[in-house]
Amino acid sequence: MRYSIKMDRLKASAIRAVQKKIVSKPGVISFAAGLPDPDLFPMDDLRNATLNVIDNKGKTAFQYGLTKGYAPLLEKLAERMNEKELVKCTKDNITITTGSQQGLSLAAMMFIDEGDIVLTESPSYLGGINACRPYGAAFMGVDTDDEGMVIADLEKKLKENDNVKIIYVIPNFQNPTGKAWSYNRRKEFMEVVNKYDVVVVEDNPYGEIRFKGEFIPSLKSLDTENKVMYLGSFSKILCPGLRVAYICADIEIANYAEKLKEGLDLQCNQFAQLQVYEYMTTCDIEKHIEKIQLLYKEKCDAMIEHIKNDFPKCIKYTDPEGGMFMWLELPEGMDANSLLDKSIERGVAFIPGAPFYANDGAKNTIRLNFTVPSVEEIHKGMKIFSDLLKEVCK
Amino acid sequence: MRYSIKMDRLKASAIRAVQKKIVSKPGVISFAAGLPDPDLFPMDDLRNATLNVIDNKGKTAFQYGLTKGYAPLLEKLAERMNEKELVKCTKDNITITTGSQQGLSLAAMMFIDEGDIVLTESPSYLGGINACRPYGAAFMGVDTDDEGMVIADLEKKLKENDNVKIIYVIPNFQNPTGKAWSYNRRKEFMEVVNKYDVVVVEDNPYGEIRFKGEFIPSLKSLDTENKVMYLGSFSKILCPGLRVAYICADIEIANYAEKLKEGLDLQCNQFAQLQVYEYMTTCDIEKHIEKIQLLYKEKCDAMIEHIKNDFPKCIKYTDPEGGMFMWLELPEGMDANSLLDKSIERGVAFIPGAPFYANDGAKNTIRLNFTVPSVEEIHKGMKIFSDLLKEVCK
Repeated sequence: MRYSIKMDRLKASAIRAVQKKIVSKPGVISFAAGLPDPDLFPMDDLRNATLNVIDNKGKTAFQYGLTKGYAPLLEKLAERMNEKELVKCTKDNITITTGSQQGLSLAAMMFIDEGDIVLTESPSYLGGINACRPYGAAFMGVDTDDEGMVIADLEKKLKENDNVKIIYVIPNFQNPTGKAWSYNRRKEFMEVVNKYDVVVVEDNPYGEIRFKGEFIPSLKSLDTENKVMYLGSFSKILCPGLRVAYICADIEIANYAEKLKEGLDLQCNQFAQLQVYEYMTTCDIEKHIEKIQLLYKEKCDAMIEHIKNDFPKCIKYTDPEGGMFMWLELPEGMDANSLLDKSIERGVAFIPGAPFYANDGAKNTIRLNFTVPSVEEIHKGMKIFSDLLKEVCK
Repeated sequence: MRYSIKMDRLKASAIRAVQKKIVSKPGVISFAAGLPDPDLFPMDDLRNATLNVIDNKGKTAFQYGLTKGYAPLLEKLAERMNEKELVKCTKDNITITTGSQQGLSLAAMMFIDEGDIVLTESPSYLGGINACRPYGAAFMGVDTDDEGMVIADLEKKLKENDNVKIIYVIPNFQNPTGKAWSYNRRKEFMEVVNKYDVVVVEDNPYGEIRFKGEFIPSLKSLDTENKVMYLGSFSKILCPGLRVAYICADIEIANYAEKLKEGLDLQCNQFAQLQVYEYMTTCDIEKHIEKIQLLYKEKCDAMIEHIKNDFPKCIKYTDPEGGMFMWLELPEGMDANSLLDKSIERGVAFIPGAPFYANDGAKNTIRLNFTVPSVEEIHKGMKIFSDLLKEVCK
């Protein structure tokens, strides 16, 4: 078969490769996953909402709908973006997507021609990078510190490269590092961005899972020039299986996304959109999110406790105020990949950090997830992991 | 904003434009839609299946799943492809897609580089054509008669154009014409195709809705060289709102589709896949399909009755043995578009046929849908439409 050049550009997910190693070893405590804790899914509420959809909306829930999305859900999302994210918008700015992953690939298709540049944080989310690969994007990591992208490096790269089309960022509790950008950095970032003909893809699946510190406004809420394409999702605050997410952007971008989506998959699942709408209108999602925050804080605290008390002092770590991940930096020269094999043998899995860099990545980095294992498993797994690190970091 | 060249290549759906005209005129009887009859959705069975999913599968139904699809559903589909379509395959050959539309866009992305050629029937399905546009496909219509693609013309076009990558066909009750390919033509088609390095995308959403004549095997069942990428769907035999469809193809193609889909939207709705699986294992889908066949036959017969008795004899028409559509050819020189405005004014809508041709299309053609209106509406609408045609076809 003569495949297109797009297929040569694909890269298999490094996370999946690790998952396969784990599956073959039952009983392993996994800090490798990127899943929300399924025990937090509000099953009774979801059951009621689902029944309401069938009994009250009937056949329309199973019929074709609009590519842009179920109109009452669009309204509801616009309302919530105004209230919770302080973003001035109407339903015209929203388009429903199959997970934020589809928002990422729509952005890539909309803006990337062969050779165009995507600027990313360094490291960044693998799925965001992979979404851009088929269309021939080149990637450039922007230096990133604890407050966000380093402005001087961002500006340098924008100045030197006319064909930067997308700046892809996750300003809240980033996957993989768990870091959140400061308010000042967000403002500085938007000031710079406004000087260039570029779109900012703001991926915000974790923003509402802040369990420490103060709310910081999204880039979209600071976006005076309609440069930000904001991606929101129900995957981490309700459940991922329904694949309901959304774009909030300039009307022109939202409309282009709709037009492109028509050829890609016509529309998202109608039933799932009604389930989410029904859940939002009859249940208390804000209260539910508080519950998520509480449990994830407890799990994160348990993990941090072991890092502070048991890890060799040469290991650097992030101390996230929300989200699902934290990030480790082993001493230079160490290879997280070879550590992984030893670790899995002892019963603990994690994701080596190198694949999270668009180009060559630091081999001495590790992503840890704290949402899937129970608190008990975190204690048990982190003890094993600490012992291993003490042995290898001599 | 500097959009990619892909956005210049998009074309808005002509069907949507007609739909907008209709919406503004309430009370219009529509033969314009492409929807299944929602009164046929098996609501009680869907309700039970949905409840079973929540109560028996619980949280896993709302969690992330595999990109390839829910494993038991893949097994079930492979089983059904063997039994009903006589296609030898296993679950490794299957990948779940968000509607067949996603199967079409996956095929386009997998095989089309700029300037590559897609051969289509003439006319063909708009959505199939639009799925290929963003990647720079050129389109060539192959002459098509009542038995399928004309082999001599197909072979000529394959011989003369080395960069034909996809042959896109709907051999069963095609949208828009309602025609089905003969068995002999299918065999001849595969013999020719086997001589070229090309993929056949066989789009078969309507195959099971045969309400007259004998079953004819799919191209996939005659595919000795793994050239056929078969697209199956639950949209027309169960309901479209769940967006559950599938690719059945050579393992290499199925795997590439999975890899590509990972970047596009990660995976299909997990809950919907479980709903469909539960429905298939606890309800009688074959009996349900018989019910669809019966009602669609009654509706098709009602439409044909008016065409035979009331239409001016200068109008040609197809007499479908299944599916959802039939096709009219008005005398040459007539323009279906200007007829549409008059028709809507009198209360009847249809879709002009020209946009169903990849390049320039016959303006004197019309697609009629018979599944959405009731039998009564068909009688009423066809009477109005016949009267109009008698006036303009003098």
